Amino acid sequence: MSSSIANHPDRLLPADAGVREIARSLHAAVEHLPIISPHGHVDAGMIARDDAFPDPTALLISPDHYVTRLLHANNVPLDALRVGGSQKVSALDAWKTFCANYHLFDGTASGYWLRQEFIEVFGIDDREITAENADATYRAIQARIDAPDFRPRALMDSFSIEVLATTDDPLDDLAAHRQLAQDSSFAPRVLPTFRPDAYIKFWGADFAQKADALIQAAGEGKAGYDGYLAAMATRRQYFVEHGAVSSDHGAQTPATLKLDRDEAAALFAKGMAGTASMAEALAFEAHMMYQQAAMAVQDGLVMTMHPGVHRNTHAATLAVFGPDTGHDIPFAVDYAGGLRPLLEDFGTAPGFHFIPFTIDETVFSREIAPLAGFYPSVYIGAPWWFLDAPDAMARFRSAVTETAGFSRSSGFIDDTRAFCSIPARHDASRRIEASFLARLVAEHRITEERAHQIIVDIVDAAPRRAFKL
Amino acid sequence: MSSSIANHPDRLLPADAGVREIARSLHAAVEHLPIISPHGHVDAGMIARDDAFPDPTALLISPDHYVTRLLHANNVPLDALRVGGSQKVSALDAWKTFCANYHLFDGTASGYWLRQEFIEVFGIDDREITAENADATYRAIQARIDAPDFRPRALMDSFSIEVLATTDDPLDDLAAHRQLAQDSSFAPRVLPTFRPDAYIKFWGADFAQKADALIQAAGEGKAGYDGYLAAMATRRQYFVEHGAVSSDHGAQTPATLKLDRDEAAALFAKGMAGTASMAEALAFEAHMMYQQAAMAVQDGLVMTMHPGVHRNTHAATLAVFGPDTGHDIPFAVDYAGGLRPLLEDFGTAPGFHFIPFTIDETVFSREIAPLAGFYPSVYIGAPWWFLDAPDAMARFRSAVTETAGFSRSSGFIDDTRAFCSIPARHDASRRIEASFLARLVAEHRITEERAHQIIVDIVDAAPRRAFKL
Amino acid sequence: MSSSIANHPDRLLPADAGVREIARSLHAAVEHLPIISPHGHVDAGMIARDDAFPDPTALLISPDHYVTRLLHANNVPLDALRVGGSQKVSALDAWKTFCANYHLFDGTASGYWLRQEFIEVFGIDDREITAENADATYRAIQARIDAPDFRPRALMDSFSIEVLATTDDPLDDLAAHRQLAQDSSFAPRVLPTFRPDAYIKFWGADFAQKADALIQAAGEGKAGYDGYLAAMATRRQYFVEHGAVSSDHGAQTPATLKLDRDEAAALFAKGMAGTASMAEALAFEAHMMYQQAAMAVQDGLVMTMHPGVHRNTHAATLAVFGPDTGHDIPFAVDYAGGLRPLLEDFGTAPGFHFIPFTIDETVFSREIAPLAGFYPSVYIGAPWWFLDAPDAMARFRSAVTETAGFSRSSGFIDDTRAFCSIPARHDASRRIEASFLARLVAEHRITEERAHQIIVDIVDAAPRRAFKL
Repeated sequence: MSSSIANHPDRLLPADAGVREIARSLHAAVEHLPIISPHGHVDAGMIARDDAFPDPTALLISPDHYVTRLLHANNVPLDALRVGGSQKVSALDAWKTFCANYHLFDGTASGYWLRQEFIEVFGIDDREITAENADATYRAIQARIDAPDFRPRALMDSFSIEVLATTDDPLDDLAAHRQLAQDSSFAPRVLPTFRPDAYIKFWGADFAQKADALIQAAGEGKAGYDGYLAAMATRRQYFVEHGAVSSDHGAQTPATLKLDRDEAAALFAKGMAGTASMAEALAFEAHMMYQQAAMAVQDGLVMTMHPGVHRNTHAATLAVFGPDTGHDIPFAVDYAGGLRPLLEDFGTAPGFHFIPFTIDETVFSREIAPLAGFYPSVYIGAPWWFLDAPDAMARFRSAVTETAGFSRSSGFIDDTRAFCSIPARHDASRRIEASFLARLVAEHRITEERAHQIIVDIVDAAPRRAFKL
Repeated sequence: MSSSIANHPDRLLPADAGVREIARSLHAAVEHLPIISPHGHVDAGMIARDDAFPDPTALLISPDHYVTRLLHANNVPLDALRVGGSQKVSALDAWKTFCANYHLFDGTASGYWLRQEFIEVFGIDDREITAENADATYRAIQARIDAPDFRPRALMDSFSIEVLATTDDPLDDLAAHRQLAQDSSFAPRVLPTFRPDAYIKFWGADFAQKADALIQAAGEGKAGYDGYLAAMATRRQYFVEHGAVSSDHGAQTPATLKLDRDEAAALFAKGMAGTASMAEALAFEAHMMYQQAAMAVQDGLVMTMHPGVHRNTHAATLAVFGPDTGHDIPFAVDYAGGLRPLLEDFGTAPGFHFIPFTIDETVFSREIAPLAGFYPSVYIGAPWWFLDAPDAMARFRSAVTETAGFSRSSGFIDDTRAFCSIPARHDASRRIEASFLARLVAEHRITEERAHQIIVDIVDAAPRRAFKL
Repeated sequence: MSSSIANHPDRLLPADAGVREIARSLHAAVEHLPIISPHGHVDAGMIARDDAFPDPTALLISPDHYVTRLLHANNVPLDALRVGGSQKVSALDAWKTFCANYHLFDGTASGYWLRQEFIEVFGIDDREITAENADATYRAIQARIDAPDFRPRALMDSFSIEVLATTDDPLDDLAAHRQLAQDSSFAPRVLPTFRPDAYIKFWGADFAQKADALIQAAGEGKAGYDGYLAAMATRRQYFVEHGAVSSDHGAQTPATLKLDRDEAAALFAKGMAGTASMAEALAFEAHMMYQQAAMAVQDGLVMTMHPGVHRNTHAATLAVFGPDTGHDIPFAVDYAGGLRPLLEDFGTAPGFHFIPFTIDETVFSREIAPLAGFYPSVYIGAPWWFLDAPDAMARFRSAVTETAGFSRSSGFIDDTRAFCSIPARHDASRRIEASFLARLVAEHRITEERAHQIIVDIVDAAPRRAFKL
């Protein structure tokens, strides 16, 4: 009971001794492979500028809504954690609050990552994360942060990150990405991702203003819907030229819809005028998902979709602390019906890659695996939010594999803005893959030899294949 | 193969020897903790009067629709089990029918509880529950029932029940609860629960008559909707004064809705006149869920909700045997969208506790855990009906823990009207919690030391915390 | 790592040594029981004529859309597999393509069956299924196919198939079934199944023409809807007289609806005229499901239902290769609400058997088990498509058993058109049942003695009971 689990070599591996031994061997085969992170929310500018991280709280707590949300649920106000730029308490006091409540993360995905991060990045066994030790751990982490080798570029190297995709506004000039690409002393690839949500959702903040700016910037002189479509294509191309491999879409639902030009233009005009109903706004979004796929067939960007989330559900929290502060709540989705128009027309288009993500587990076996088991364009997105944890990943593999095998997966995505948690997340994913495969080996469902090939494929080849890296 | 599993010390614990040993130790830590039962359907009057139980059939079979339903599915008519007061066969003959079909319960939740009840309450190994032995077992149970120490009050003590909540009509005078509370020789707390369903659902039997009686009894002289709302608040307060800690709502769906006073009053008038459509009736119910929450913020009652069930689906059975006779069938629910109006306004209200239950497993990871992982008011309800069994509870823990940890659970509720099954149900729950935690320990996901703290918290502290006991 | 898993005696059994030993013993008890296949898609004519199988590709690949779909997803064109009668490549070349991609099936249900089929039917260890060996394995399989003992009738015997149900058009004359039934040298029962989908769905190809032919053939001289209903009953009776025990319905949804005669007749007229809306077509289908149940109460045919699938979603593939070519995609279903009208009227009708199947796992614990746990008519359909694999079957048993026990299951159905895979499929099912029961034994939830009785009941008695065999 007294030895540490923080860096236990068998952490997250199965309890059964025989299965564990197989899992160990599988994990060993991929443990040191480079990290490929084809979707996430790290800021490219931070890496380009090689910013120093400010303090432990700003690095590990305030911006990570997976951490702050569970504290909030346990009656810690968000401003006691310096969320959304709040300065109501000191960074040290926020850290103390976190430490006093650290036990809340036992058994959670965030808890597993934090523990690994503490031990592997900061050398702190998480048994030291207590209210009593808060001053000392704060100082220890601060000292580590202040070290000259603790800058983003050096960490990219020590974390073995080969590819890191960011998520970017269509009008971003991608200067940071360009700078990094041109820097011959910097080996990793930092790739932009085209994320046009705010330019598509009529109900979003400042939609008309944003769409107008898009048309002005890249509409090739055309006005209205025609200019808008042209600008989308133009900016996608700009992203392609700056290394982007994918576009990402946080659509409200998985619905797709093919409207003719005049219908779409009429809806767009309503959206610009602020007179569209919610049903019309959703129809336009569905149509634009179809259009993004049509463009992808041309420009080759992989299309990822993350539907099924009520965003920013708590208005009072949104008003004070901003978006992405922990109150996005998933709902059920219909991928089978929703994607039909898109796949009908582009499902077998050469080179088109479509990666659906979900936090509605019900679609794994019912819809996602059957779709990816027929359409060459469809790759099964890794579990996402709330499902990117050991048991959920095991459920995911169990749900999709028997229909679609191992060849149709996108590989793991970490989807994180917590830079220092990236190695822990990828290691967790590799351990779960090893555990799943080890069970199949132990049940004589695949050979151990094949399991070794498969885990290397899943960890290394699958993301390169699905994301065209 | 010949030793008994009825009181096997490792029953319901994992097969793996290493995990089982951890689970044993965790179970031992909570095995003898008192039972806290914050939601159920035992009759307080039976305890107050200290009624003798009539006979084995009336005690164990006829009123327990989990038992009678599976027999019915296997072509046993309900009147052969004396359901709904039927006297068509003798109690002994009904018992014989049960014994002859006892094997049908193998592998079911009811089977696990019955087996424990037989061995621990009546000293009968369930291998004796056969058609051949039916006379003997009937007599043995009858003898036990007739013993002077087999009265509800004595059993409350021998079962170690510290708190037992009942479910009560808003107009109940709660005399039984008052009598028990004032009895200094009776230590357990028997608490009423405010359950106003029949006064809210326009489509229920005698709605208008009931709502009218409510207004007359407690409307503070006001008429119509205003009197109705006032009466709800008045009766809730009456329950609070008699020890109630929660209100319970068997809503049709999880929908909540904030109507203004005039809209609500107009719907109410239609409901009273019997002219409301089903859509209007559901809107009114959704509005009243919002109102109950608003009242809860004032009076402090915990709000529990059990939506998503088609009640009494078989009209012919309802007509002959009454409600709660085994033909309530669950359907899919939308907690994420449904609760939004309620949580938008009361999700962070100080002291407000909302506990969603479900028999739609899909919402565990998708909606319930994310809601409870942000809103301080939301506690994750334990699995309910059909899901209160070993595998289902394991799925539940696996689905919610990785997002919401262990701190956000309501603890186990037995929701039973089968008084003598209460210890078996709570023991089963403790064994499953021990098994789940033991796996996490064996996978080096939590320390054994923390697992010991967590299981005590789950079993003892969580229900006190969530239900304000 | 080098010993073969193809015929490993412990394949698909649990990894834990103790549980595995119990599972072995349970599997041994049913391993050699005859195969009862009450639902599938083998052609009775092929058996009656005792056709030789043409070649390995035609036997194992081209017609099996579970095999071709996953190859297609991996960019193998369907005409490279001779799907839908395509002759673009030779059978040998198609075989080579399959062999080169055989690794894609690792971990899939199809992969498990193919492996068993290779080793047990053809004597080929699947490690030999490689691009390099393709010529040799093709020749070996061809030689086996050409052997005089490799004809359908001989295989029925060597596979120990006692009952094999086919799926047939209502106007089929059932000559093949009659011939087999009258052949005293042929012991197995080959039973037709009444499948009227194409005569019910207004939106199907040639609906009006088919319905008209039905009325002409069996309408007893009546016209329109009355003739249509009469013809349905007449043809069902014809099937009964030819040994049918069930009717099968690939309904769009589980909805059922009782319309009065005039409403139904009006809808039917619209359907015949091609003027019905999709909503009207679905209402008519729901009504006809109710009518089929009403007829079943009279003529005793078991009613099976397979709803919730978008059929032939990829129009371009349908146009070139025909239906059943891998692009049927499931969606969520509502059994609880959908079946209510049907069960309200026929749920307790003596002798009526209704077997719901699903590929929406969410209904297992939420709807199917509760329905089968009350209504004597409802038997739980085995997992179907995409769910007929080890992990999915384990999830299925776990989801339904705790509510409905073991007595309410229909037993395994293989639902296959791949004749030579039948033994492998049934063996896989028996291994999974053994594994599930072994865990319950190891957890002291049932006795090993009862587990032995239960597995024999599941494998042998359940299908006979549910399908009235």
